[in-house]
Amino acid sequence: MIDYLGFLAGFTTTVSFLPQVVRVYKTKSGRDISVWTMALLSFGVLLWLIYGSLIMSLPIIIANAVTLVLVSAILFLKLIYARRNSLKEVAPVDGN
Amino acid sequence: MIDYLGFLAGFTTTVSFLPQVVRVYKTKSGRDISVWTMALLSFGVLLWLIYGSLIMSLPIIIANAVTLVLVSAILFLKLIYARRNSLKEVAPVDGN
Repeated sequence: MIDYLGFLAGFTTTVSFLPQVVRVYKTKSGRDISVWTMALLSFGVLLWLIYGSLIMSLPIIIANAVTLVLVSAILFLKLIYARRNSLKEVAPVDGN
Repeated sequence: MIDYLGFLAGFTTTVSFLPQVVRVYKTKSGRDISVWTMALLSFGVLLWLIYGSLIMSLPIIIANAVTLVLVSAILFLKLIYARRNSLKEVAPVDGN
């Protein structure tokens, strides 16, 4: 029973990052998202992954493996759009 | 030794939300932050808190209690500034 709660907790916190990935991808902007938060979160989730493996807790392993992918995607998209938007400011597209 | 890793993982993922709280507070904008992500994350972290209590894992309890406070703060600030900014658009301050 307790493990199911762990799975539900892991599932919820894991899928919670999906709307953020979609939002950054759709708006092509992650300006309000803190790079430090995403970088620290990626590192911390990696540590949770190791911790979960050591105590052999499947809910922690699965949740943090998927979270790592999603959080890294948010960080990656934020950096790409920050760079693209700054290039646009420097050299606006012809005809604009 | 393993519990120390759990504490470090918990500490890192917990403090990771602090820069985001500061950023939203400073920029007075959380436009790029997904409400769904923060709401689901708050709920999921609450479940982790219950899970951690049931398996009596101190790293999970402490990490998720503090994370819950920080994530709720981000959600709260985002909603406040979203409302304030939309009011500004409707009725710009006199003299603007």
